[in-house]
Amino acid sequence: MAPPEEMNITIVGAGTIGLSFAALHLIKNLGSQVTIFDTRSDLQQYVQANLPGYLVDAEIDACLHRLRTAASLEEAVSDADIVQEQGPENPTFKQEIWPQIERHAPANALFWSSTSGIPASEQSKDMRDKTRLLVVHPYNPPHIMPLLEVVPSPQTSQKDIDRTLDYWRALSRTPVLIRKECTGFVANRLAFALFREACSLVAQGVVSVEDLDEVVQASMGPRWTVAGPFKSYHAGGGEEGLAGFMDKIGGTVQGCWDASDEDVKKGDVRVGGPWQEGVCKAAEEAYGVIDTAERDRRTKAVLEAVGKT
Amino acid sequence: MAPPEEMNITIVGAGTIGLSFAALHLIKNLGSQVTIFDTRSDLQQYVQANLPGYLVDAEIDACLHRLRTAASLEEAVSDADIVQEQGPENPTFKQEIWPQIERHAPANALFWSSTSGIPASEQSKDMRDKTRLLVVHPYNPPHIMPLLEVVPSPQTSQKDIDRTLDYWRALSRTPVLIRKECTGFVANRLAFALFREACSLVAQGVVSVEDLDEVVQASMGPRWTVAGPFKSYHAGGGEEGLAGFMDKIGGTVQGCWDASDEDVKKGDVRVGGPWQEGVCKAAEEAYGVIDTAERDRRTKAVLEAVGKT
Repeated sequence: MAPPEEMNITIVGAGTIGLSFAALHLIKNLGSQVTIFDTRSDLQQYVQANLPGYLVDAEIDACLHRLRTAASLEEAVSDADIVQEQGPENPTFKQEIWPQIERHAPANALFWSSTSGIPASEQSKDMRDKTRLLVVHPYNPPHIMPLLEVVPSPQTSQKDIDRTLDYWRALSRTPVLIRKECTGFVANRLAFALFREACSLVAQGVVSVEDLDEVVQASMGPRWTVAGPFKSYHAGGGEEGLAGFMDKIGGTVQGCWDASDEDVKKGDVRVGGPWQEGVCKAAEEAYGVIDTAERDRRTKAVLEAVGKT
Repeated sequence: MAPPEEMNITIVGAGTIGLSFAALHLIKNLGSQVTIFDTRSDLQQYVQANLPGYLVDAEIDACLHRLRTAASLEEAVSDADIVQEQGPENPTFKQEIWPQIERHAPANALFWSSTSGIPASEQSKDMRDKTRLLVVHPYNPPHIMPLLEVVPSPQTSQKDIDRTLDYWRALSRTPVLIRKECTGFVANRLAFALFREACSLVAQGVVSVEDLDEVVQASMGPRWTVAGPFKSYHAGGGEEGLAGFMDKIGGTVQGCWDASDEDVKKGDVRVGGPWQEGVCKAAEEAYGVIDTAERDRRTKAVLEAVGKT
């Protein structure tokens, strides 16, 4: 489904996520007019200087003439079809800004927050109409990574959930509906579960920081690009699928879970615990400052290999 | 470093992992002569019928004339430079076979076990010389996936660890040294930690089996193919690296870890727990029987995109 010919998208908050989303709309939705609002006084110069960093050279001219900045929130949202917010991660800020946006935006505009942790049901507390707001949480940076976690509140209307999923599908992104608001949503919950195990194993001296990254880069990374964990273990069980996998390998799985719990507890692997300084120091020694442009270029090549661009 | 011109590699155990390793040596080490031993009575026909499935057509002729089967363990290992074992996952089997192999193999042959859970220190219990044995644990299937976890026992000699790492590097694989024998080694520990969180979130109704796989396929999969978890979060912390990431995002990380522990406990997410049947049924409904040849073809394309083939 192609996106509508003409569409006004307003980005509230011009940090790195805001600029990355602006670039994504401009590149993928050729009918979009993108308006950026932020309270910084040098907004126009700042956007002109930084947005091209999110585009490849050939895209710059075709994109920049569909971009403008706005001097006030009222002006920014007054003709918006979508308002996408990435302001400070502060419940009070979000609870205060949505009623203002609601007051000035067209009645059928969609409202999206890029928050990584403040659910729509909390953000919409003081809105007149709570059915229009939902979380659209990216995996950074959104102009490169296909995933968008779509997390409605219990009040969000089905129509606005569907419009949100349709929009992103039309742009060949991967929107995924999260059915219940929960701490951290899904991507971070999964990633941080593995990350805790990684910290625990390094803290115990089982493997170095760099070697642990090599393990993931040479195994789960490529495998899970093609088939996520359920699909992978379902395949691993042969004709009996995941149930067969659990029958055959379940003892090993439970053994790993038990060892993990014991090690995490023994090593006191919580944020700020005694393990943290040494692991952070090892990462600094291993990597110094990372070239994220190179990382993004290589990530694009991986995504092209599975047809996700 | 190129592998030696001529090298005899003996594969003990002709299951899927044994055939996959045989294919890998034949394809990547053009100086290799590969001998397969297994107690099955139809070994020769079985290998001839099944090994070509691990090769692409153009490789078959160049590989098969360097392959033979052996009628006894003694014959199989008598001129081996490397003996690679993938028999039953049973400590008694392993403890009994290594002294036999040791008796008949050349004095400087390397001994590798593909076990996913029985450490070399346990397998070598009845060997005269315990310095020659180590675990080389693949991420299946080894003829596709680059990772090999190299797990020596405390008795394994540094010389044989180095020879093992050198061999696999010469074949452009990714051997990673695991510094302490531990339950599940590293890859499975990491993968199962994420898998437990995945089972917990699906069991709670937060996300479907297929959508959870989509989340991973569109985010962590491609990202972790290019930069493992430490490298990714070190980049996420900007100039302050992983320490900066923990300072800024640590509260969110700990919040996810706490929610995870509570949910796993509440949902009784252990192997065989009440969640398991529903999740396995959902995987069956989502995927039926998976085409692993298609999965492997796509995985190869991903690995090519990052220069790992």
